[in-house]
Amino acid sequence: MKTMILAGGSGSRLWPLSREQYPKQFLKFGDQSLFQDTVLRCLELSDISEVFVVTNVAQKFFVLGQIEELGYEIPEENVLLEPEGKNTLPAITFGMKAIEKKFGKSTVGIFSSDHVLDHASSETISNAEQLVTEYLVTFGVSPTHPHTGYGYIKPAEAHGCGCRVSEFREKPDFETAKRYIEEGCLWNSGMFLFDTEVFFSELKTLAPEIYNAFSENSKTEEISEIYPKLSSVSVDYGIMEKSDKVAVVKLEHRWSDLGNFAAIHDEFKKDESGNCINDCDSTLLDSCGNLVYSKPEKVVSLIDVKDMVIVDTRDALLVCPKESSQKVKAVVSELKARNDERALSGQTVYRPWGMYNILEKSGRHNIKKITVKPGHSLSLQMHHHRSEHWVVVKGMACVQMNGDKFFVRPGESTFIRAGDKHRLSNPGKIPLEIIEVQIGELVEESDIVRFEDVYGRK
Amino acid sequence: MKTMILAGGSGSRLWPLSREQYPKQFLKFGDQSLFQDTVLRCLELSDISEVFVVTNVAQKFFVLGQIEELGYEIPEENVLLEPEGKNTLPAITFGMKAIEKKFGKSTVGIFSSDHVLDHASSETISNAEQLVTEYLVTFGVSPTHPHTGYGYIKPAEAHGCGCRVSEFREKPDFETAKRYIEEGCLWNSGMFLFDTEVFFSELKTLAPEIYNAFSENSKTEEISEIYPKLSSVSVDYGIMEKSDKVAVVKLEHRWSDLGNFAAIHDEFKKDESGNCINDCDSTLLDSCGNLVYSKPEKVVSLIDVKDMVIVDTRDALLVCPKESSQKVKAVVSELKARNDERALSGQTVYRPWGMYNILEKSGRHNIKKITVKPGHSLSLQMHHHRSEHWVVVKGMACVQMNGDKFFVRPGESTFIRAGDKHRLSNPGKIPLEIIEVQIGELVEESDIVRFEDVYGRK
Repeated sequence: MKTMILAGGSGSRLWPLSREQYPKQFLKFGDQSLFQDTVLRCLELSDISEVFVVTNVAQKFFVLGQIEELGYEIPEENVLLEPEGKNTLPAITFGMKAIEKKFGKSTVGIFSSDHVLDHASSETISNAEQLVTEYLVTFGVSPTHPHTGYGYIKPAEAHGCGCRVSEFREKPDFETAKRYIEEGCLWNSGMFLFDTEVFFSELKTLAPEIYNAFSENSKTEEISEIYPKLSSVSVDYGIMEKSDKVAVVKLEHRWSDLGNFAAIHDEFKKDESGNCINDCDSTLLDSCGNLVYSKPEKVVSLIDVKDMVIVDTRDALLVCPKESSQKVKAVVSELKARNDERALSGQTVYRPWGMYNILEKSGRHNIKKITVKPGHSLSLQMHHHRSEHWVVVKGMACVQMNGDKFFVRPGESTFIRAGDKHRLSNPGKIPLEIIEVQIGELVEESDIVRFEDVYGRK
Repeated sequence: MKTMILAGGSGSRLWPLSREQYPKQFLKFGDQSLFQDTVLRCLELSDISEVFVVTNVAQKFFVLGQIEELGYEIPEENVLLEPEGKNTLPAITFGMKAIEKKFGKSTVGIFSSDHVLDHASSETISNAEQLVTEYLVTFGVSPTHPHTGYGYIKPAEAHGCGCRVSEFREKPDFETAKRYIEEGCLWNSGMFLFDTEVFFSELKTLAPEIYNAFSENSKTEEISEIYPKLSSVSVDYGIMEKSDKVAVVKLEHRWSDLGNFAAIHDEFKKDESGNCINDCDSTLLDSCGNLVYSKPEKVVSLIDVKDMVIVDTRDALLVCPKESSQKVKAVVSELKARNDERALSGQTVYRPWGMYNILEKSGRHNIKKITVKPGHSLSLQMHHHRSEHWVVVKGMACVQMNGDKFFVRPGESTFIRAGDKHRLSNPGKIPLEIIEVQIGELVEESDIVRFEDVYGRK
C-alpha cells in the first residue's frame, strides 16, 4: 500500500499554540507532533519511499525536519508542494498523480496530518484493501458522544468488511447529533483508501474540471499553472457525496481531529480534578476541568477556576471557557485584521537551518537564542544598520567573516559590525546554540542582504 | 507638622505583581508607586527633612531610590530600619522616638505607604491638628459600600472638627457591614495624628512593656536588641481601643487599602465593558469586568470571560475570579512551603545600584538585562565558575578588570573570564543598560566573591 499525508492546513483553532506559519500538525503533544505520529502510522502500512506528503513551500522544512527527527529520509519527489491551498480534492489529486507516476496503479491510504488516531487502526485500514477495486473507501469512526463538530456518515447494507454509504451528513446541532448516533451514523474521519484507477475514473466523471487540469499538465513544474485555475473543493463534496461507488469502513479506535482546545482537553492526560497542565509548574486551589499550557520557567496559579482554557506563550495569552474554544479563530481574524504578526508566527521562528527564539525585542536591540541544526548554515549575509554579538552557549560555531573563517567555542563570543559580510554554520554533530544581541539604528528582519543561501532564499 | 510613613509591610495579597521582596507599596500604578504618592502627600504637610519612614533593611533601597526618583533627598536619620516586623505599635513608637529626638515635642501625621488617598484629604488632616493636645486622633473614611475587608469606627458626640469614639469594630460580614453603615460607622483607615507627649503618656499607661523597652534603649544601634523582646501588637489593639482620649476625624475622600485585586479593579480606569487592562495589547470578545496585567510584548485574548483577575508576569500567571482574589495569599503560602523562589522575588530583581531582569535561565547559561543607575557601581567581584559577556545597549559603561579600567560604549562588548576580578559602573548621567550572558559549569547568584561594595554588602 502507498500512503499520502495531507499536511497543508494552516489552522487557527489552536492559537496561540499554533500560528499561521506553525500549524497544528507540527505542534508536539508529548514526544511527537501529530504529523510525526501520522508518518509513523503510515510506516506501518508502507515503506518511507512509498509515503507521500502534500504540503506547501512554507511548511516544507517542517515536513523534512520532522521526518529527519524520526530517523527517516523521505525522497524529495515524495514531498509535493501546493502553490496555494484549494481544499482536499486538488491536494489528493496532486498526490494520486505523483503516486501513479512513480508506482503505476496503486492502492493509496490518505490521512490528515493533524488528527490523533490509535495505531491499532492500521490493521483495519490494511484489511479494507479488499474493497478498493470496487469502491472509494472512506473511514467512519464509532461515535463516543453526540459531537457537533464532525460530519456524520450513515452506513447502508454491509459489503465485505465495510458498508455502502446511505448518506453524508453535515455537522449537526446537539439534538440532531444524538439522533444520528441512534441511527447508527459514524463520524466522518476524512481518511480514505483509494485505488488510483477507480479514483481517476470517478474524478473524470464527477469533477472533470479538476481531472482535466491535472491531465493536461502532468509535470510538477507546471503545478503553479494548474492551481490558480482550480476551484476550492473538498473530496467529500467533489466526489464522495456524488459517487455511487462509495463504501465506509468502521473504525472502532480512539480518534480525534483535535479541532479546538476542548478536544485537546478531552484527549490528553488529566489529574484527579480533571486539570490538564502542560509544560509548567502550577498551584491549583479549588480548580477543576481546566486546560493549561505555559512555559517551564513559569508557575500557573488557579483559584476557583473551572473548565477554562489558559494558553500562555511568550507573546500571547488566551483565556476562555472550554465551551467557547471554537471561537478562538475569531481572535486570529481580529489580529490579522490589525496586521498583528502574532497571528502569523510566535516568538519561536522556524527556518530551514533550525530556529530562533526572540528573548527580548525593543526599538534599538533584539536578543535571540539561535539554534542551528548539525551540518546546516545560515545564508552569507550583511546588515546595513545593526551589529551582532554572538555568544556560543553549546556546540561549535564556524564563522565566516569578510573572507576569514574561524571557530567559536562554548563560552566564547564574536562580534559582527554593520557592513561585515558574514555567515554562521554548525560544522558539528550536535545542535549549535548561540545568543545573539543585535544593536543598531534599525533592528528589523528586513535589513538583510543575502549573498548566498543553500536553501534558495537569495 | 511632622509626618511618618509606615513602609515595612511585605504583603502577599497582590502576588505575582508584588513579591515578599518587592511589596505592594513600591509597585507603580501609573507614573508613581503608592509609596511615592504617600511621600508627595506628606510633602503637602511637612518638609522633606520632617518626613520619616519606618521600613526594614531589605526595603531601604526602594525607599531611598523612589524618593530620589521624585527629586528629593531624605536625611539618612529619617529612614528607620526595623530589624523585624512587629506590627504597627512598635513601628510607630520607633518613629515617634526618632521624631521627638530630632525635633522635640511635635505633631505627627502617620500614614500607611500602600493605600490610595485623594490629595484633597491633606487639608482635613492639617485641620485636625486642633485636636492633638487633647486626643489621639484617628481618621475614619465615609463608607461608599458595605466593605467586609475593613474595620469600622463608631463615632460618639462631636468635639471640634472630630468626634469622640464610641467603639472600634472588627471586619464584619456583609449584613453586619450594612448595619454598621446605617449606624453611621466609618472605615478604619489606619491613619493617625498624634502629639508626641500625648502618645508617650498613653503608651506608658496602656502598653508599658513597649514604652519601657524604647525608653531604656534610645540609640538606633540598640534597636536590634529592643525588637526581639517586643510582642507583635497593632496600634489599634495596643492603645486606641483602650484609651479614653481617642477622637475620630471623618475623611470624605477617595481612599482604598488596595487590599486585593478586586480593590485594584474598583479603583482604576476601566473601558466601557468594565475591563481594566494594563501594560499589554488585548483582544476582548464578549468579556467584561476583568482585571488584566501582562507585558508590553504580549497580547491577551479573552473570550466569554467575566469578572476574572488575570495577572501575567515573566515567571508566574495568576487566574481567579475577582470575588476569590482575597485567597491569593494562600497561593503564596503554598509556594513558600515548596521553597519556591517565585514567592519571594520576580524576574525583575532590585539592587541598590539598579536592577536586573532575567531574560532566560537554564542550567548552563543565564541572560540578564542589567540597568545601572547614573553614578552607581556594582561591587568589585569575581566568579569561580562562570564567564560573563557584556553588551552595552544604552548609556556608558566603565569596566574595571584586573587592575585595568576602560569604557564600553553602546554597541560595544566586553568579556569577563571566570576568575577575573571585575566591577561595572555607570559614570554617566543616564541609566546604563547592558545585556549580560553568563556561561559556565555553575551559573548561580551564590558564585560571587565580593572584594569591595559601596552598599556594605561585602
